Amino acid sequence: MKITLKDGSIKEYAEAMSAYDIARDISEGLARAACAVEINGEVKDLRTVVDSDCEMNILTAKDSEGLRTVRHTCSHVLAEAVKRLFPNAKLAIGPSIDEGFYYDFESEPFSREDLDNLEKEMKKIIKEGNRLEKFTLPREEAIALMKEKEEPYKVELIEDLPEDAEISFYKQGEGFTDLCAGPHLMNTKGIKAYKLISSSMAYWRGDSNKAQLQRIYGTAFATKDELNAYLEHLEDIKKRDHNKLGREMELFTTVDVIGQGLPLIMPKGVRMIQTLQRWIEDLEDNEWGYIRTKTPLMAKSDLYKISGHWDHYKEGMFVLGDESKDKEVFALRPMTCPFQYYVYKNSQHSYRELPLRYSETSTLFRNEDSGEMHGLTRVRQFTITEGHLVVRPDQMVEEFKNCIALARHCLKTLGLEEDVTYHLSKWDPENKEKYIGEPEVWEETQQHMRDMMHELGIEFVEDVGEAAFYGPKIDINAKNVYGKEDTMVTIQWDALLAEQFDMYYIDANGDKIRPYIIHRTSMGCYERTLAWLIEKYAGKFPTWLCPEQVRVLPISDKYEAYAKKVEAELKKNGVYVSVDARSEKIGYKIRESRLAKVPYMLVVGEKEEADGTVSVRSRFAGDEGVKPIAEFVEQICKEIRTKEIRKEEVQEQK
Amino acid sequence: MKITLKDGSIKEYAEAMSAYDIARDISEGLARAACAVEINGEVKDLRTVVDSDCEMNILTAKDSEGLRTVRHTCSHVLAEAVKRLFPNAKLAIGPSIDEGFYYDFESEPFSREDLDNLEKEMKKIIKEGNRLEKFTLPREEAIALMKEKEEPYKVELIEDLPEDAEISFYKQGEGFTDLCAGPHLMNTKGIKAYKLISSSMAYWRGDSNKAQLQRIYGTAFATKDELNAYLEHLEDIKKRDHNKLGREMELFTTVDVIGQGLPLIMPKGVRMIQTLQRWIEDLEDNEWGYIRTKTPLMAKSDLYKISGHWDHYKEGMFVLGDESKDKEVFALRPMTCPFQYYVYKNSQHSYRELPLRYSETSTLFRNEDSGEMHGLTRVRQFTITEGHLVVRPDQMVEEFKNCIALARHCLKTLGLEEDVTYHLSKWDPENKEKYIGEPEVWEETQQHMRDMMHELGIEFVEDVGEAAFYGPKIDINAKNVYGKEDTMVTIQWDALLAEQFDMYYIDANGDKIRPYIIHRTSMGCYERTLAWLIEKYAGKFPTWLCPEQVRVLPISDKYEAYAKKVEAELKKNGVYVSVDARSEKIGYKIRESRLAKVPYMLVVGEKEEADGTVSVRSRFAGDEGVKPIAEFVEQICKEIRTKEIRKEEVQEQK
Repeated sequence: MKITLKDGSIKEYAEAMSAYDIARDISEGLARAACAVEINGEVKDLRTVVDSDCEMNILTAKDSEGLRTVRHTCSHVLAEAVKRLFPNAKLAIGPSIDEGFYYDFESEPFSREDLDNLEKEMKKIIKEGNRLEKFTLPREEAIALMKEKEEPYKVELIEDLPEDAEISFYKQGEGFTDLCAGPHLMNTKGIKAYKLISSSMAYWRGDSNKAQLQRIYGTAFATKDELNAYLEHLEDIKKRDHNKLGREMELFTTVDVIGQGLPLIMPKGVRMIQTLQRWIEDLEDNEWGYIRTKTPLMAKSDLYKISGHWDHYKEGMFVLGDESKDKEVFALRPMTCPFQYYVYKNSQHSYRELPLRYSETSTLFRNEDSGEMHGLTRVRQFTITEGHLVVRPDQMVEEFKNCIALARHCLKTLGLEEDVTYHLSKWDPENKEKYIGEPEVWEETQQHMRDMMHELGIEFVEDVGEAAFYGPKIDINAKNVYGKEDTMVTIQWDALLAEQFDMYYIDANGDKIRPYIIHRTSMGCYERTLAWLIEKYAGKFPTWLCPEQVRVLPISDKYEAYAKKVEAELKKNGVYVSVDARSEKIGYKIRESRLAKVPYMLVVGEKEEADGTVSVRSRFAGDEGVKPIAEFVEQICKEIRTKEIRKEEVQEQK
Repeated sequence: MKITLKDGSIKEYAEAMSAYDIARDISEGLARAACAVEINGEVKDLRTVVDSDCEMNILTAKDSEGLRTVRHTCSHVLAEAVKRLFPNAKLAIGPSIDEGFYYDFESEPFSREDLDNLEKEMKKIIKEGNRLEKFTLPREEAIALMKEKEEPYKVELIEDLPEDAEISFYKQGEGFTDLCAGPHLMNTKGIKAYKLISSSMAYWRGDSNKAQLQRIYGTAFATKDELNAYLEHLEDIKKRDHNKLGREMELFTTVDVIGQGLPLIMPKGVRMIQTLQRWIEDLEDNEWGYIRTKTPLMAKSDLYKISGHWDHYKEGMFVLGDESKDKEVFALRPMTCPFQYYVYKNSQHSYRELPLRYSETSTLFRNEDSGEMHGLTRVRQFTITEGHLVVRPDQMVEEFKNCIALARHCLKTLGLEEDVTYHLSKWDPENKEKYIGEPEVWEETQQHMRDMMHELGIEFVEDVGEAAFYGPKIDINAKNVYGKEDTMVTIQWDALLAEQFDMYYIDANGDKIRPYIIHRTSMGCYERTLAWLIEKYAGKFPTWLCPEQVRVLPISDKYEAYAKKVEAELKKNGVYVSVDARSEKIGYKIRESRLAKVPYMLVVGEKEEADGTVSVRSRFAGDEGVKPIAEFVEQICKEIRTKEIRKEEVQEQK
């Protein structure tokens, strides 16, 4: 048989051989580094016996699929360590995942100390250098083996396998055998650098009605350096995680008796949201031609029956009352659309009045499960910059482009534009029944949207089956620190729903015509944007967004009056400023101010008071020297007015 | 017997006489004008026979109680007219009320035309000049009489009278007899000026489970001039009624399928509320030392169980879910208190940090009956400037005074201060079980509040039994155009509730101490304030509150470019400005602008363009002459910045 290797070279062998033996034939070094093998494009165990011509790529820990194998084997090593230290623990499942692996056990919760001990035990196991051996068993024997080992979850897993499935096990040394499809390393020694990260509760099969297990997360890398780099990255993530940092900075909190997914925004967070809200409202109304509505947060079921939500989205809504006994049943709104339609319908409109661009700082509610809630990003109540543009068909493309331009302007101003991906969310022609409207109209509209994106010079990907049921949309997505992607902005093309609400305008001939509608956000959701900003800037926000922009630090009590004078001058100019007038050492005050991530500290003492100046220290450039008050006021006011994002030029002192 | 008259003179009579005969003895003119009589301070029928010494005051239509008698008799005349024109109508009740009278009938609804015909019939009846005669009957005969006349409501009324009640009737001429306690005029001729105002549905005995009746409202006055003045006042009220004018001006609307009490604020209304909200938020935060929260609009039942709302206010709340089947039950909040308490409780506070003044632009929900809803004043969802001050006991009086001062500042700025009444709402010592805390503390606290009000030089009334269960309060009330009084601002003293939420601060000795709390609003409810402003100013708001402050009117199309230039200049300076660029006559544009109650019109034509000026016409002073653009910009910006309330110096042209 002929084996074509990745570099194009060909090896010929007379008889069937395992991939591992072929690797060894190529070089001992390769065999030592090998983790798995790709045969004709399919990732397989090194133990796989090859008996015919094929293309072969030996994978090492430098390849992502090779690394997956390392991590998967590492999860088995963890499981063996757990069985050694906690013999009563029962094994559930232990896959590799994007950034490492986990293993679920029925056990008492694991402490960090437990994890440290497990790491040590894993070290021993790896040092023992046991070979992993694969074997298969018929179903009944497989079940008997796992029953003998008192592993009920494994028994359940085997019972659920299809009739004809191969049931394979991996055994490492004498002590540990696990049900597993592989692939795995040949020997535990192949694990060079690993770390147990954390432990938390997880439900068996992710089902909250099933047993509570303890999940241990770990990771492994090809080298210690790569592992260390990853752990540093994790530390950085932890520092940026809005759900941690946002609480530490007193931007928000949650309260058990109030409920999950219902964050309380604290005064500093409110100031940031207020700054964002005023900016967006003024931007939309004064520069982009929007008019603003303020519509009720709930409506009778009658409204949702017209909109279709009652039939299709009732589970996701908070319903007030019971149709079987109450004369009126209300529901909290999950969106603003029909409310703004009724503002439009309040009077008759001529074609000359269109486009009408309605926007609202709109609070919405989604009835989701407590378990899904997370910080400011998975919440039950949130506020978005929701708008609906009622336009003539001939205005649609131009207005749609403007919506994209406005969203980009918002992202750019916040410094977030480089972090997003653009998506054209299309219908799924294989699933026509999920959509309304004609196929050719869908294709035509999607082509319009492609053309627009090209004209605007925006790169985008196309996602099939992600459209709204009434039309395609542009979604702008971003990832959080953990890599989870959320939609931040959405702009939707709707040529169909005006019918449902009997919306029309009067054209030049006096006829009633259905308008088109654009559903859109500009900045998106305030809570989610705040979370994003916290993670993006690790709390060191651009000055214009900071809840505290300047802190005045008098050298001693003697200069408090002068500090107050400086504060008054800044306040008069709309700067968020405070004075730290405590009788603490100046070094302590500077340190606290830096911890609070205040962009500017103004140190004032005898010299400054005598000269009417301030000593400026900034988060951006460190010591910025002594300046007359007026000069500093002018500088910071310009920075705030222009929404400048100053780069941090100096490394923060620890 | 000796009759002492109002002027102190004494009349002596040998035998018993009716009050009417005494009036006639004094003068025929007085007898003609007499409507009722006050005997020893009690208002009675003129037919009352006097047989012993007394003080007597003969009442005419110039006295309010005399006028009441005229109106009451007028309601009988109306009832007779209805029975003549609609013989099948059944009589319910027909009392005099503050500004007239009404009569309820079981009947088809009455149209305006019906009312006009009834007025004519009443004129005939009055002209016939029938005497009213009073007679009494024993219960059984009274019931028999009303059964004979087929008046089932009257039968029910008699049946409900106490055993020992005198059952009296008034008969006018041959045609009409009504069950009535009086007093009444001697003759229908005593009615000099009357008018039927309107008709609407009313439930029998005000109970929505009972029969639907038709109520006719009418009024009567001593003279035609007084009646006309009143009718003009009614016209003015109608023009001011926010529920009518606010819709006409497109400030808000309501939609059946969304629900009663859930107004949609339209773009012009939103701009007014936005102006108010930014003003209040900046005022509180930048000038009065508040910090702002933004807390969730709902919470789990757990929270309301701590606060006591679950047990005492559940009927008034919108509840989401059902405790018998859902694992989490939420309710929309009817107040912000506990949410702000948890912001306080997020960290431990030292005595040095107090007072902490939390404020929130807070949306609240009250589950009230659809029938109670009215415009912007009786609603299910509303937004208030809600705040809670957490203070040390020694700071309480000072902080409470500041809350009153802030509320007054808001009222003054809005031009509403002269329309309000101040109330010290006290506990009811006769009903101690409704309140918590010791009697002497209540009395002491109320004395503090009296002292404060005196110090602040504010007149106030004291209302027994109007306190919150935890403490007394200052309520600031105002009347709507129909005279209905609502509370606009409330400031409440609370020395007790911190206990319930385990709130404390650390004092100088390191001990945990319970703070006091002030519950307060500054401006109050945004929706209600908007309604009040509409009625106060009949839509002609102070310039700073106007959603459209300036309209630029080019004389012809030729000057549109210049008009746009003027618009841009004003917009740049933050003025809400528009251009009426339609090809309409300038007179028409001016008229429309005036109807829209825009404070400033700038007419621009050839001369203005050449000179860079504008011709200013204002709602306040009419023609204000030609001014350079910059001068007008400076003038209006100052007016807006200082929140000036310019007086209307000219009568508007019709």
